[in-house]
Amino acid sequence: MSRPKPLSGFPEYTPETRIIEQRVLDRLRQTFELHGFGSIETRAVEPLERLVKQGEIDKEVYAVQRLHAEPDARAELGLHFDLTVPFARYVLENAHQLSFPFRRYQIQKVWRGERPQEGRYREFTQADIDIVNVDELAGHHDVELPLVTLAALERLHVDLGVPPVLMRVNNRKLSEGFYRGLDITEPAGVLRVVDKIDKIGPQRVAELLVSDAGLTPTQAEACVRLAQISTADQSFVDQVRALGVQHAQLDEGLELLADVVATAAAYVPGRLVADLKIARGLDYYTGTVYETELVGFERYGSISSGGRYDSLASDGRTTYPGVGLSIGVTRLLAPVLGQGLLRVSRPVPTAVLVAVDSEDDRSGAIAVAEQLRARGISTEVAPKADKFGRQIRYADRRRIPYVWFTSAGSGEVKDIRTGDQVPADPAVWTPPVADLAPRVEPVTG
Amino acid sequence: MSRPKPLSGFPEYTPETRIIEQRVLDRLRQTFELHGFGSIETRAVEPLERLVKQGEIDKEVYAVQRLHAEPDARAELGLHFDLTVPFARYVLENAHQLSFPFRRYQIQKVWRGERPQEGRYREFTQADIDIVNVDELAGHHDVELPLVTLAALERLHVDLGVPPVLMRVNNRKLSEGFYRGLDITEPAGVLRVVDKIDKIGPQRVAELLVSDAGLTPTQAEACVRLAQISTADQSFVDQVRALGVQHAQLDEGLELLADVVATAAAYVPGRLVADLKIARGLDYYTGTVYETELVGFERYGSISSGGRYDSLASDGRTTYPGVGLSIGVTRLLAPVLGQGLLRVSRPVPTAVLVAVDSEDDRSGAIAVAEQLRARGISTEVAPKADKFGRQIRYADRRRIPYVWFTSAGSGEVKDIRTGDQVPADPAVWTPPVADLAPRVEPVTG
Repeated sequence: MSRPKPLSGFPEYTPETRIIEQRVLDRLRQTFELHGFGSIETRAVEPLERLVKQGEIDKEVYAVQRLHAEPDARAELGLHFDLTVPFARYVLENAHQLSFPFRRYQIQKVWRGERPQEGRYREFTQADIDIVNVDELAGHHDVELPLVTLAALERLHVDLGVPPVLMRVNNRKLSEGFYRGLDITEPAGVLRVVDKIDKIGPQRVAELLVSDAGLTPTQAEACVRLAQISTADQSFVDQVRALGVQHAQLDEGLELLADVVATAAAYVPGRLVADLKIARGLDYYTGTVYETELVGFERYGSISSGGRYDSLASDGRTTYPGVGLSIGVTRLLAPVLGQGLLRVSRPVPTAVLVAVDSEDDRSGAIAVAEQLRARGISTEVAPKADKFGRQIRYADRRRIPYVWFTSAGSGEVKDIRTGDQVPADPAVWTPPVADLAPRVEPVTG
Repeated sequence: MSRPKPLSGFPEYTPETRIIEQRVLDRLRQTFELHGFGSIETRAVEPLERLVKQGEIDKEVYAVQRLHAEPDARAELGLHFDLTVPFARYVLENAHQLSFPFRRYQIQKVWRGERPQEGRYREFTQADIDIVNVDELAGHHDVELPLVTLAALERLHVDLGVPPVLMRVNNRKLSEGFYRGLDITEPAGVLRVVDKIDKIGPQRVAELLVSDAGLTPTQAEACVRLAQISTADQSFVDQVRALGVQHAQLDEGLELLADVVATAAAYVPGRLVADLKIARGLDYYTGTVYETELVGFERYGSISSGGRYDSLASDGRTTYPGVGLSIGVTRLLAPVLGQGLLRVSRPVPTAVLVAVDSEDDRSGAIAVAEQLRARGISTEVAPKADKFGRQIRYADRRRIPYVWFTSAGSGEVKDIRTGDQVPADPAVWTPPVADLAPRVEPVTG
């Protein structure tokens, strides 16, 4: 068997890089749980009919079928391409045993048969939070969700050195109310054109709004001016008011968005702006919409997006509105790993290597290791009885900070970074907390 | 859309049950890392050719193919059915950047298109540990691996209340050396028959050994007597010696197995026995073999199996021998959950619900919640401004132990289990450690 080659679009990490990913996932989980979100996991497959009927049908689905299926049997299952479709199905299936409003997080792999390119994968990890309720969901959850997401992303920044983020927020009600206040009858068409403003510029958007969406030049100009408003505080409200448009739905949207911005400014200052051009492609968002860029890496696209959907799921009798945000963990890690922004203090969990002088002495080394492990210190016993220097080299290659020497009852521990070696008792010796587990740190300079 | 039905063989847990699974997975991870095993994850798919050429070709593989593939295109990928095949491929692919002996754990889902039945699933979670080296791997790792696995399973028992386990260990060298010492030329055929001893009994095994495997009645009797030896200490060695068979490979196997039993007796007493009938179906095991039952739930089959393979992977020039054990997490949980052996103190992470008197006061409630979260206390703000009694009921339904009342600057916290309510400062108040996170406990009586 020759050396296998990686599969394009299916990233796999080295053990060292996996430690970075684990630290990221651990912090997301901790933050979600700190805010009262419980974990669920859904199966990897959904009935194909459920996957292909969603709004965005251009998602490339992977079909799954038993290899030993009848030759002309049609596949009935597919791998999920996001965590929202399975979550909606899970809510319908388990509604009778869930407490609403139901707060859940879900960290799992998803699969898309897309053409792999920078920041786009065929298998990748998402971390989603959603709050879903029966019949109605209060607007304050639209304020809460970005706060939780930003708290999680801020921990990645402060604790690990991941770049900071900027979340851009809009509200569909605001835009649509504004359009309706201008007597525009088809706001969805306007949103689709305005969504292109970053790519084609405001001038071209204004032209298209007239030529394609049938607006008057005055209407088009007002829509472009609205889309150009972006503020880190509530001043966007006055800027919108200055455009002189009146509509009840606009008022509602303004109030909700002002609340989001004010609360974020209090708890995660500098990380969130109102940005009235944000539309988001998905048809099911009906209120607040979010997208998030990694500062300095904007070209990788949004690393966390979501919004409010008035009907996340429905069984015909009951409707479940929700609001959710999804963090693209693999996409977030792409520039961080690709540009070597973070480093790991060691590629193994091991803090202490217990040296073995001779194979006859291995049981003594195991006894020392067990004493250290009993106090939470990750320990390995040397795989081979060997000379002093080779044992040090074994530890050094893995950047294991301490080597423990046992000989005739007495023990000594050496910090191989400083060369300091001191007598030590395996029942009480403890390394500094910073050495207990691999540390993830930003590469500076 | 009507209420969806579960897919047979694809178990999904309620949020409450998921907490049990998370606790189990956390403890496995902690124990593996404590013993110096690092995490890797491999992609869910492998080339089909790699999946179907393995020894046990009756594994039902799920093929994976883009839904938009050409109509007559053949699937090239399949979902992995275990974590050993992907690990072997990962080692070959990344050998140049791994340090050997390489110690890794891997906790992931695997898929098999099997007929679902009790304890058998189409999607389930495995937790594997392996040590792999280049060219040769020392025998003491055969002693180390069951110790790590038993330490992990013992934590599930002691910390969570999962039933205790019994690991049965044999060594292929021992059996094969014994057979060769009896001048049996095809030990593999004998092993296959002996493997059925639990099902068909020793008498029938002896008959088959004569009729099918071509042994003399004396040889057959010796093989059956060997297979009936099982001891919790090293006394099996004398019992084998008493059978009067001599062979160098037998000596080697006896010594290795005695070492496993003695070390396990010292560190995890009562959890491991030498059991000379254990053969394991897989052809690639070449030395020690392990299987493990949950005491009282033996009929669910082995919940942790593995062994030594002299050639886990090979690229034609280099051979990578390994020893590994796999814990079937989903199968282990089946009787534990099915029989309600464990209970969770609450189905949500939340320790404190901050009540909201009126919507105007929500920002004050958020401020209290943020103070509590900053000190690691999982906190939710009530979704609706409501009366005292309804807020209590909201918490009670989720078994959230504390409700925080804010009114005009002063705060009070109520333990809803006891009814005690005391003035409290969100900057310093902390619940007892036992209330910080949901607890998993055995159901007693």
